[in-house]
Amino acid sequence: MDVYARLKELGCELPAPAAKGGLYKPVVQEGKLLYISGQGSSFNGEKFTGCVGKDRTVEEGQEAAKLCALNALSAMDAYTGDLNKIKRIVKTLGFVYAVDGFKESPKVINGCSQLILDIWGEENGLGARSALPINGLPGDVTCEIEFVFELK
Amino acid sequence: MDVYARLKELGCELPAPAAKGGLYKPVVQEGKLLYISGQGSSFNGEKFTGCVGKDRTVEEGQEAAKLCALNALSAMDAYTGDLNKIKRIVKTLGFVYAVDGFKESPKVINGCSQLILDIWGEENGLGARSALPINGLPGDVTCEIEFVFELK
Amino acid sequence: MDVYARLKELGCELPAPAAKGGLYKPVVQEGKLLYISGQGSSFNGEKFTGCVGKDRTVEEGQEAAKLCALNALSAMDAYTGDLNKIKRIVKTLGFVYAVDGFKESPKVINGCSQLILDIWGEENGLGARSALPINGLPGDVTCEIEFVFELK
Repeated sequence: MDVYARLKELGCELPAPAAKGGLYKPVVQEGKLLYISGQGSSFNGEKFTGCVGKDRTVEEGQEAAKLCALNALSAMDAYTGDLNKIKRIVKTLGFVYAVDGFKESPKVINGCSQLILDIWGEENGLGARSALPINGLPGDVTCEIEFVFELK
Repeated sequence: MDVYARLKELGCELPAPAAKGGLYKPVVQEGKLLYISGQGSSFNGEKFTGCVGKDRTVEEGQEAAKLCALNALSAMDAYTGDLNKIKRIVKTLGFVYAVDGFKESPKVINGCSQLILDIWGEENGLGARSALPINGLPGDVTCEIEFVFELK
Repeated sequence: MDVYARLKELGCELPAPAAKGGLYKPVVQEGKLLYISGQGSSFNGEKFTGCVGKDRTVEEGQEAAKLCALNALSAMDAYTGDLNKIKRIVKTLGFVYAVDGFKESPKVINGCSQLILDIWGEENGLGARSALPINGLPGDVTCEIEFVFELK
């Protein structure tokens, strides 16, 4: 299945690659692994902000997490020129800006993981993962997620 | 030394593999590396919860961190079928649910690292590590720790 | 360009390798990758402490982040015997001890990334990165940063 066709089926549009916010590269390749910098929840530069448990619901957090996945796809699209070169997700480290004692970070980060699963399927679309709350995020974004993907 | 015999000597029982709490795999292999998803402090599904510095002491936190190590062993046992296939620990990223300004996260995460050291020894049982406090964790668990191990 | 000569040009002195604060190795090599344990902001054992947004300004935070980079260089110098063996930075995960809702963690961690860029240049001195605030750090240090570097 073509990744771009699958994204269309899922009703997803790739955002423009996120503007750089610091001294880093969006994607670094080491062997067949692509290390993806922390992707904030934004779409075409418009930030999705706010603290889950105060300003945002869990469901809104899931929407934010999905945006992080889309930004990662966009970064890999820009880097590889073709998302069909991606074999699988290896690892995800996700952070949710949330109130103290927030318990449902895995549920929020599922908004990201579900999209990757929907594209690459059970065998290649599920990776190792940690999903954590945190007391703030750059520019007040609701989620920030970093990834390791593997090329075919 | 057989890992299972060593665990017995240390008085440790392997818990059942932790129930899945999200869209991820407990273990992803890439070459000889095993990426282990964040393991929460629980034993056979019973959570070890609470905030260090408020609900829990540093010593209790160490006990929680040890449970994270045991869950990682359990996940690798289920994945590999034999823990004697593990060569060494490469990397640990540990989080302690703790009050603001908590200073002793390394001491807490030592509860995890000590067990791995006790099994694999100085050469293979010490890895690179970061040990951090955090303002919450999934389901209020006291510790969550992710790992990279290497197969023989 | 020789790394030690470049450090001199930049007015930087390598600190002594940081004292161990837990059960870990400062550097673990896996293939050509060097996994560097979380480096706190300190210089020759003297800690740079305090919470950004309360005790410390963003500019002071940048100074702290630079110390983390210097400690990573010191750890790699001790491990490799020659920093000229380093090819490039692959990945950085940086934490800033900061008040709730702190928005400028990337700006703070730039204090670390700028030094690495100044040494290895645009091609090899910029890696994948996440830069996060956090509600505390070991011993109250202002920054803690872990790294993956690659050998030539």
